Amino acid sequence: MKKPLIFVTNDDGVGARGFQYALSIARKFGEVVAVAPERTQSGMSHAITMSSPLHLRRVRQEEGMVVYACDGTPVDCVKMAFDYLLADRRPDLSISGINHGSNSSVCVIYSGTMGAAVEASFYNIPSVGLSLLDHNFDADCTAAAHFGEIVVRSLLHAERLPSPLCLNVNIPMLPLEQLRGVKVCRQAKAYFRENFHPRLDPSGREYFWLTGDMINLEPTATDTDEWALDHGYVSVVPVQVDLTAHRQIDSLKKLF
Amino acid sequence: MKKPLIFVTNDDGVGARGFQYALSIARKFGEVVAVAPERTQSGMSHAITMSSPLHLRRVRQEEGMVVYACDGTPVDCVKMAFDYLLADRRPDLSISGINHGSNSSVCVIYSGTMGAAVEASFYNIPSVGLSLLDHNFDADCTAAAHFGEIVVRSLLHAERLPSPLCLNVNIPMLPLEQLRGVKVCRQAKAYFRENFHPRLDPSGREYFWLTGDMINLEPTATDTDEWALDHGYVSVVPVQVDLTAHRQIDSLKKLF
Repeated sequence: MKKPLIFVTNDDGVGARGFQYALSIARKFGEVVAVAPERTQSGMSHAITMSSPLHLRRVRQEEGMVVYACDGTPVDCVKMAFDYLLADRRPDLSISGINHGSNSSVCVIYSGTMGAAVEASFYNIPSVGLSLLDHNFDADCTAAAHFGEIVVRSLLHAERLPSPLCLNVNIPMLPLEQLRGVKVCRQAKAYFRENFHPRLDPSGREYFWLTGDMINLEPTATDTDEWALDHGYVSVVPVQVDLTAHRQIDSLKKLF
Repeated sequence: MKKPLIFVTNDDGVGARGFQYALSIARKFGEVVAVAPERTQSGMSHAITMSSPLHLRRVRQEEGMVVYACDGTPVDCVKMAFDYLLADRRPDLSISGINHGSNSSVCVIYSGTMGAAVEASFYNIPSVGLSLLDHNFDADCTAAAHFGEIVVRSLLHAERLPSPLCLNVNIPMLPLEQLRGVKVCRQAKAYFRENFHPRLDPSGREYFWLTGDMINLEPTATDTDEWALDHGYVSVVPVQVDLTAHRQIDSLKKLF
């Protein structure tokens, strides 16, 4: 059997620790082609670069693996890979991550990791976003990598999979032995509220940092990713991008 | 009756022509507070600025209207407005646009205009994204503004509205008299394929522009935004952000 071709990307940049773990997972299963952002692209969502050109730089090449850096967004990286570098080959699976920080619940729409994962799923291959609930750049990714490997193996060995398929996988910040397993769940309803505190730079100019808190609108629901993560489970949410509020269509037709 | 407070933003930047039209629509109905990006933020999706600080600049103030520019993304603009500038007042409605270019179908997930519109809806006010199917910066926005006004009036005068409510409104590039009215519809299933042609800069370094084509997966369906736009209608798609692929949950539970 031919070895699978696995694509890897992330949003923390080509030098991030979690990205090295994602490369290691991918190498266990097959040949690896990776394109990651040159610099951090946290919070870049599904952004694409429209007003400046993109550059590709090969940063690493060894037997069975080639890694590029691209000076665009995570989604740019995916597009450069699938529509240029790999234009005549189709990967068998895509991994985005391991992200340093949660992408559960409504974070999915702000996340560069998940932007890239969703974009890869548009090429009709199974796509996985892996995120660890620890923002630190030296976070211990051991448990996240362990579960990432379980998910990737399940997808590569499955007889049939839904298509398109994009999984948002989040791993609690717990030692491996305290993790209770995988829970397939839905995205919890939530939103963010920001706290902007004006500061003054050395020239006296006012500036702000964006920093907020997530408000979970359904803290007691037991079928959400937030509940799973709070209770020591790895959350797996299948993701799709029909944003239509189908249930509102009929009432709106009366309005217009 | 107290005049409504209307928030306005966009993704083409504070100097864009379409933004001036959006301000004009808003002024017809109430007091206006606007925060728009300093520069173009096309394709910025739901991106937020996490690794650099934000600045706010008041660019215009007159009776009943104040306009700020923010050096972040469209979503940053919304957050700065709702969680800082307007922390003790809640607008009655939000307008994002008028965008220079389509945001129909899958474009909704790449769109900075719609990123901002969705973010505003998180504050539980009716939110509208307006996009004209003409990329030119000197596009004639007359017809788009006409229909934008119709939509805004309908929302402000409605007795009851779904909540949260976010409308993705796209206007064909046609003279007003050729537009056939408003159609409430759903997002067409589609994806993009890019065409990357390497070029050389004056120093011989290779670069790429991201440019692609949308592939509509259901060109014959008559209830989609693409169909409506192709047939001369203004498309109105209600938007929500539960990205869960609910129908895949059961089959995935068997996998893990």
